[in-house]
Amino acid sequence: MNLNDRAARLVETLISRVEERRVRVVEVAGGGRVVDCGVESRGGVLAGLELARICMADLAEIGLVPGEVGGRGCPSVQVATDHAVASCLASQYAGWQLAKGDFFAMGSGPMRAASGTEKVFHDIGFREEASAVVGVLEGRAIPGPEVVAMVAESCRVAPSAVTLLVAPTASLAGGVQVVARSVETGLHKLHEQGFDLGRIVSAFGSAPLPPVAGDDLAAIGRTNDAILYGARVVLDVTGDDASLEEVGPMVPSSSSRDHGEPFAAVFARYNHDFYAVDPHLFSPAEVVFRNVETGNTFAFGRVEPGVLARSFGLSGEA
Amino acid sequence: MNLNDRAARLVETLISRVEERRVRVVEVAGGGRVVDCGVESRGGVLAGLELARICMADLAEIGLVPGEVGGRGCPSVQVATDHAVASCLASQYAGWQLAKGDFFAMGSGPMRAASGTEKVFHDIGFREEASAVVGVLEGRAIPGPEVVAMVAESCRVAPSAVTLLVAPTASLAGGVQVVARSVETGLHKLHEQGFDLGRIVSAFGSAPLPPVAGDDLAAIGRTNDAILYGARVVLDVTGDDASLEEVGPMVPSSSSRDHGEPFAAVFARYNHDFYAVDPHLFSPAEVVFRNVETGNTFAFGRVEPGVLARSFGLSGEA
Amino acid sequence: MNLNDRAARLVETLISRVEERRVRVVEVAGGGRVVDCGVESRGGVLAGLELARICMADLAEIGLVPGEVGGRGCPSVQVATDHAVASCLASQYAGWQLAKGDFFAMGSGPMRAASGTEKVFHDIGFREEASAVVGVLEGRAIPGPEVVAMVAESCRVAPSAVTLLVAPTASLAGGVQVVARSVETGLHKLHEQGFDLGRIVSAFGSAPLPPVAGDDLAAIGRTNDAILYGARVVLDVTGDDASLEEVGPMVPSSSSRDHGEPFAAVFARYNHDFYAVDPHLFSPAEVVFRNVETGNTFAFGRVEPGVLARSFGLSGEA
Repeated sequence: MNLNDRAARLVETLISRVEERRVRVVEVAGGGRVVDCGVESRGGVLAGLELARICMADLAEIGLVPGEVGGRGCPSVQVATDHAVASCLASQYAGWQLAKGDFFAMGSGPMRAASGTEKVFHDIGFREEASAVVGVLEGRAIPGPEVVAMVAESCRVAPSAVTLLVAPTASLAGGVQVVARSVETGLHKLHEQGFDLGRIVSAFGSAPLPPVAGDDLAAIGRTNDAILYGARVVLDVTGDDASLEEVGPMVPSSSSRDHGEPFAAVFARYNHDFYAVDPHLFSPAEVVFRNVETGNTFAFGRVEPGVLARSFGLSGEA
Repeated sequence: MNLNDRAARLVETLISRVEERRVRVVEVAGGGRVVDCGVESRGGVLAGLELARICMADLAEIGLVPGEVGGRGCPSVQVATDHAVASCLASQYAGWQLAKGDFFAMGSGPMRAASGTEKVFHDIGFREEASAVVGVLEGRAIPGPEVVAMVAESCRVAPSAVTLLVAPTASLAGGVQVVARSVETGLHKLHEQGFDLGRIVSAFGSAPLPPVAGDDLAAIGRTNDAILYGARVVLDVTGDDASLEEVGPMVPSSSSRDHGEPFAAVFARYNHDFYAVDPHLFSPAEVVFRNVETGNTFAFGRVEPGVLARSFGLSGEA
Repeated sequence: MNLNDRAARLVETLISRVEERRVRVVEVAGGGRVVDCGVESRGGVLAGLELARICMADLAEIGLVPGEVGGRGCPSVQVATDHAVASCLASQYAGWQLAKGDFFAMGSGPMRAASGTEKVFHDIGFREEASAVVGVLEGRAIPGPEVVAMVAESCRVAPSAVTLLVAPTASLAGGVQVVARSVETGLHKLHEQGFDLGRIVSAFGSAPLPPVAGDDLAAIGRTNDAILYGARVVLDVTGDDASLEEVGPMVPSSSSRDHGEPFAAVFARYNHDFYAVDPHLFSPAEVVFRNVETGNTFAFGRVEPGVLARSFGLSGEA
């Protein structure tokens, strides 16, 4: 179950149909390649689903399901995994900030497990050796040789063994891969709260797919809102009930003092200083724990249809 | 991305499991073949899903999702495509009336793109050369050599290179393939309104699967109602907002003077003269435009659960 | 369309990814093998979906869809088949009680069709010869050589040609495979009522996936409740309407005098004597007949969200 190997197989499938998925492969000088899923290529919703599967190392079932926002049909992205920690924290979590000169992107995907330098890998006790690595970037620029070299070095592979897939937040594929993070954001929050992630045996989640926003800043707002006010997560866990009752209220976004307004408004209030936003905000609207040992269920948080409709620009249409 | 080649691959899969899909292959004298999906064979819902995928040239994800009509569970057919114009207008639109002697059927599928004679192909700037062609017929008769020869000639292939799949409106497979047209009917309406279809970058839609009706006339009523009063379509588009606000009100079925009653009643009112029915009626109940450039959303029309329940015979059960 | 052959192909796929599906293969002394999907292995929701597909001889599309219980997100298991009698009654129905010494499990899956000794096979006129057989056991013990030998003898194959998959009711995979029985329980009830099952041409159903309970007894309660109070089934049938109106009220669980309370409470009331419970109880909450010949629809029963929420432990959370 090498995460990078699993992702690499999906990358080959994606590359075998670049025209159908409207992506393009950019060979990087000095080795390595980039799959552009929405920067200069059009990409699409189906490219986004493949991107999300790659980002979770093909350890989750991910698909579009029907939904409703503001009284209107709106697809949701549904995720189911029996390997929540590996697929979400070791791979999908956007924990690697790739900065090099002018270049900046949030990095996720199994390359993180090959690098293994983030603290989370120490905490979950997972790292892997990889002969080739796959990363997913949320950003608007095509990474060049310096970025590829940085990834290669950190992952102890040759630049030619690096594949980076990139899509902006304000793109069809980028939007899908971000809102496929319903379960991941719940796990990340639990990790922050010191919850023993080894207790999670299965996970299910969904979040509505927002309209692509006019620019990346607005898109960050909407994709965050899809999670904060629209994501529903069900976690099957082992262990005692008391710890679930204790940690539960801290998990959904409603545990945050910044909960209640569209993220764009919150962000503006803090003058777009990301680090001023209460970090407790970044989690699903609703989290249900189902203890597979005691049979007890504990549910926390609520979806907020009104905030979603406002964020998606869906209130008040004829 | 040759549409006929793509469809032909799915046809081979279907033919490889005729017993499971309850279809039968009829070899036509003089060359060519017919796949009977519901005339003398039973067919089924899964044959219908394959028929719908073939009809969209395998350029859409199509599946059953849960839904509700009249307070009762009712499956819906969901469609997602990043190639809406090619899959819907160049392939799925039933724009080819196949009439020869006593034979009549509405023809759709990628054979239309190989023929390329309909005006719509001029408008969308798409035609293709094909070495073998695939067509989908909504009708109750098995096409014979004359029909195959007519298709072959129009598509500039030998009769032996023609495959026609046929299912009546009042059949399981036929019903599925018709209500898989949620997105297509929206695009066709937009085309009629002179909208630049090149602006559509992605599309998502669903419509409830009605009960098979007692005869084809009643089935035409119900499958139309599934679209007119039950289809929800989301279109991701480029370009300006003003044109969306202008065209939007003309797109859903509610833009028609004939909107409001089950189609069977409308049709009877016009003495079953199809051409007397307001052509504006033939479109989805709800259409949501999401402008991927401006980030703005515009929604038009509404589903009509009451009309659907009446049409499907679901009002008033215990 | 040999049922055991079809299931065996899925078994090989499952076995090819034991680590990913968290199952384990136990070679049985004297021949045969067991796939442990939740006894000493963890299993999971995706193992459960594969188990359900195996149990229906790969003659149904089975997947997770979104749902809601008690105002909270809860996945549902959706089933669609055009071979309802073969997949449900000849395979999925748990009609074979495997008892040998201390060992007891409810047996289902295509091995039943190879054995062919249950009365239902006489009624439906279906049996098959198989060179290798596949069975699914709902139970908590790994079957040993005596159980395998018993199955082998009944199915007229060598012990080495037997594969048994096992999952407890109170396990992730076990729960999924049980609530995938929405359609099956409807067909079984119809069979009990003397309905001509040959009239069923297509079937669609869904039921919510309950939380894994703390023990198997409680799990039997919850998985039953998922069907009795949460399952919605749509059956496309041939024949006359009068017989549907006549049999219909007897089909849903509401036809039972024991309907209305969570199954655990009913069961306790009868001092856990399974045979004291009204057998009419074991059927879906809602059944919709759609007559494909007359076009008429007849709906019976209702889902009971309140009972479901109580059973799943979801009432009253913050």
